[in-house]
Amino acid sequence: MRGVEELRAGIEDIALVDHHVHGVVPGKLDRAGFESLLTESDRPIPGWMTQFDSPLGFALRRWCAPVLGLRPHATPEEYLAARVSLGAEEVTWRLLAASGAGRFLVDTGLGGGLAELAEASGKPVHEVVRLESVLEDVGRSGVSAADLPARFQEELARRTASAVGLKSIVAYRFGFDFDPRPPERAEVVEAAGTWLGEGAPRVSDPVLLRFALWAGVERGLPLQLHAGFGDPDLDLHRCDPLLLTGFLREVEPRGVDVLLLHCYPFHRHAAYLAQVLPHVHFDVGLALTHTGARSTAVLAESLELAPFAKTLYSSDAWGLPELHHLGARLWRRGMAEVLSGHVESGDWALDDALRVARMIGRDNAERVYGLESP
Amino acid sequence: MRGVEELRAGIEDIALVDHHVHGVVPGKLDRAGFESLLTESDRPIPGWMTQFDSPLGFALRRWCAPVLGLRPHATPEEYLAARVSLGAEEVTWRLLAASGAGRFLVDTGLGGGLAELAEASGKPVHEVVRLESVLEDVGRSGVSAADLPARFQEELARRTASAVGLKSIVAYRFGFDFDPRPPERAEVVEAAGTWLGEGAPRVSDPVLLRFALWAGVERGLPLQLHAGFGDPDLDLHRCDPLLLTGFLREVEPRGVDVLLLHCYPFHRHAAYLAQVLPHVHFDVGLALTHTGARSTAVLAESLELAPFAKTLYSSDAWGLPELHHLGARLWRRGMAEVLSGHVESGDWALDDALRVARMIGRDNAERVYGLESP
Amino acid sequence: MRGVEELRAGIEDIALVDHHVHGVVPGKLDRAGFESLLTESDRPIPGWMTQFDSPLGFALRRWCAPVLGLRPHATPEEYLAARVSLGAEEVTWRLLAASGAGRFLVDTGLGGGLAELAEASGKPVHEVVRLESVLEDVGRSGVSAADLPARFQEELARRTASAVGLKSIVAYRFGFDFDPRPPERAEVVEAAGTWLGEGAPRVSDPVLLRFALWAGVERGLPLQLHAGFGDPDLDLHRCDPLLLTGFLREVEPRGVDVLLLHCYPFHRHAAYLAQVLPHVHFDVGLALTHTGARSTAVLAESLELAPFAKTLYSSDAWGLPELHHLGARLWRRGMAEVLSGHVESGDWALDDALRVARMIGRDNAERVYGLESP
Repeated sequence: MRGVEELRAGIEDIALVDHHVHGVVPGKLDRAGFESLLTESDRPIPGWMTQFDSPLGFALRRWCAPVLGLRPHATPEEYLAARVSLGAEEVTWRLLAASGAGRFLVDTGLGGGLAELAEASGKPVHEVVRLESVLEDVGRSGVSAADLPARFQEELARRTASAVGLKSIVAYRFGFDFDPRPPERAEVVEAAGTWLGEGAPRVSDPVLLRFALWAGVERGLPLQLHAGFGDPDLDLHRCDPLLLTGFLREVEPRGVDVLLLHCYPFHRHAAYLAQVLPHVHFDVGLALTHTGARSTAVLAESLELAPFAKTLYSSDAWGLPELHHLGARLWRRGMAEVLSGHVESGDWALDDALRVARMIGRDNAERVYGLESP
Repeated sequence: MRGVEELRAGIEDIALVDHHVHGVVPGKLDRAGFESLLTESDRPIPGWMTQFDSPLGFALRRWCAPVLGLRPHATPEEYLAARVSLGAEEVTWRLLAASGAGRFLVDTGLGGGLAELAEASGKPVHEVVRLESVLEDVGRSGVSAADLPARFQEELARRTASAVGLKSIVAYRFGFDFDPRPPERAEVVEAAGTWLGEGAPRVSDPVLLRFALWAGVERGLPLQLHAGFGDPDLDLHRCDPLLLTGFLREVEPRGVDVLLLHCYPFHRHAAYLAQVLPHVHFDVGLALTHTGARSTAVLAESLELAPFAKTLYSSDAWGLPELHHLGARLWRRGMAEVLSGHVESGDWALDDALRVARMIGRDNAERVYGLESP
Repeated sequence: MRGVEELRAGIEDIALVDHHVHGVVPGKLDRAGFESLLTESDRPIPGWMTQFDSPLGFALRRWCAPVLGLRPHATPEEYLAARVSLGAEEVTWRLLAASGAGRFLVDTGLGGGLAELAEASGKPVHEVVRLESVLEDVGRSGVSAADLPARFQEELARRTASAVGLKSIVAYRFGFDFDPRPPERAEVVEAAGTWLGEGAPRVSDPVLLRFALWAGVERGLPLQLHAGFGDPDLDLHRCDPLLLTGFLREVEPRGVDVLLLHCYPFHRHAAYLAQVLPHVHFDVGLALTHTGARSTAVLAESLELAPFAKTLYSSDAWGLPELHHLGARLWRRGMAEVLSGHVESGDWALDDALRVARMIGRDNAERVYGLESP
């Protein structure tokens, strides 16, 4: 029978391109370590609460427990015991396989993950290089301030030889309220001098961050920008993607695609930018995982304003394969709910709905990153 | 039978006052020209996408195709062929008639539209005069800087002799983060000198924009302000209506009604202002058309905080009669869905629901603009 | 039968801790006086509208009318007549009793309310002391500028001897964009001198407001902050709780819990802060009452990002016992709708849903404020 069941089945079958993801933390985790990976908070979890009591924690018990052979809503204790009993490798394999992801674009800026994710999933992986990580590596290499600009460009070229994209975390290191234009060379050298004199700690100087961003734009690969919510290092109100408007206008003539990641709770703002600026794309990435049962509502909001060619899928999973699984699971469920609603109300045609799901889940990423269709 | 069917029928029957709308582009449009009117972007549409693949594009195929004698969800090619085959005049007539709009308040700042819309629809039209257009006309008339203030006021009086309202696009030309008080005459003359010396291009000087706004307030007609999303000329984060709070407080004692248009994604902010300030009204205008299948959710959010006497209907349609049609179609559908939900849950009484729909769709605009009931 | 009916019944039975509430205005109210308490606006209600025609007005007719022995959706005239006929005392008793609130934490900064609410409800009450009220009382006591800091701390200690929390309305008096650090003593004395010289009017100097806030932090009680929408004294865009990020980081090491009240339309921002900062909690308080039939949607959004241990219930009711009733009624209805939806979709287990409702409605407040379980 043709109908929404076909749509649901079709969405289940999409070999998702997870266009922004990280690796899995190897080895055993105790409960505190496990819970610390269920939140964007980097603070110790207070004794009077557990991260299992959260939208993400409930989603994990609902959707991941069956993958480990447990009933849905197994207790945290049962879940963690099953994890130990099966072993990290088996758990990771099961959760990645059940996610149905077809390939991964891995931000290696948190250290490694590329080969490990390829091996753990058996799927193609592609590298996304984090600009700030490259800059910090160059800063610690003994370079002089005067040589830093050229050395960064050389190192970026070398590190991205086989990469498909670039990533910036300027949201974390400064915010989006920076001068949108490329800095002058003299400014960069001066800022580099100060920074190198301090021993090249985490880079947070806006001149250096802008230098790295613009060197990334010159490199010409699609540029991912963390936007919206993340750990408490960032000031969320300074990570509203609308604050990037000036920068995006400056980048537009360079012919580089920009991909705004997560964006919550500013996803409607990102969708606006994706409507009006041809090179801007976005996803709700991490927001689906963290909002659990409410992720369908968030996804629906992300489908309000942008042309369907401008929205992508990512999990932004890091550390726990549960997050890789939940990103995909909640995206599929959400798309099935929202689009079958549109089909049942008569707003959308069935074929269009399935086509849009494939665009967002796979095709748009293949186009933006120049991936070969498998 | 009395029930939600009666409510739905009653909402269908409202002769909507479209309190902010533009004219229809005359003559033939090729596909590129047609698609360019389906987005707020003013950029060429990239070759790898079509604006038909958007919430608005899908809504157009769903709701306008049957008006042209096609099945719902006809392909873009079928739709455009039917448009050619029927001819622009017939298409316009059909779409306007099927919208059920009872009268139009036309912002003539994009050039004309008033007589054409009256003729194409057979309905009463009323003019809304755009302040910045009048100012730019005066600026190009050979006026001196010293004479500009008086000449603008004279020209505004002349141009608004039979108008029902004023419109400002200060959102596009500067943003809402301007000094809320009226400028001093000396400042205005000085800014006018600079502007006239440049040949009076599009006005973007905040002193001149404030001068036009305050002259508009003195004129005493209801004042419409574009707010929220629009084309990429604007910086969306500077068009949050909350940034107008100071200006609205200054206007309040003048006894002039202010109408915030569109407001998305800041429509909850606009509804707040409409609750606490007696002269502030708002609509979600263009946002319904652009969000398509999701417009009901946006409309529901617009009904959260404001007294029902403070919300209005507009399409902000420009260029394509499809947009005039969709504005009305999606408003009626959305109101029927949201209000019948409230009736079915027992939250609202049926009579109240129909009364509120008529207030928002017609009565509030008649009151604010002093329109005679037909 | 175990199922969502059990969940609904369980939510009805929660003896809510209303952790931020005010007293009831005693005596008779005419219609204008009654309507003025149905809005955050402090302006006279225009003759062409009534506050009964609002989401709150409709909710009042729906939910409060039956408590007064009327049919749901009784007219405003019928409702007000029943109020007169029953008498203020009986009306207050009925509405408070039917709310099912188990105890009240009363912000006495609007003057009194504590004993009255205890008597009118027959339930335990606890005091929350408003910092700015204490400061203004000290300012009017004849204190010198040099003595003001110490005198304020003494008076605060005295006034809070049996209080369970503190409240700040810095949102109203300045906004959240203040210097997050404690002011220097010399600055405080200087600002106090200016303020006392003016006769100690409503305090709005940011140095004095910061002084009061930090003295409150030193006092060590849980600190409530009005956030988001309120009366037009405030600039809503300066009351986004994200603007408190720096202040919250400064407070974190002091071990004081912070409670962000209302937060609408920035409740997703507040939930983010509650996820990443261990001491931050929030509610949607007043927003439920004012959004009426839409309150369930607002409540659902508040459950997206925060761990369930970080969300609380309050009514922020002031003046009318109808508001005490509606806060509780709409919270119970909303929680029942949202959580039974999650149970029916399989996302949440039934036991978890009931446990979360009890946490938010009662247990979290008991923990934060150190209340004895009854």
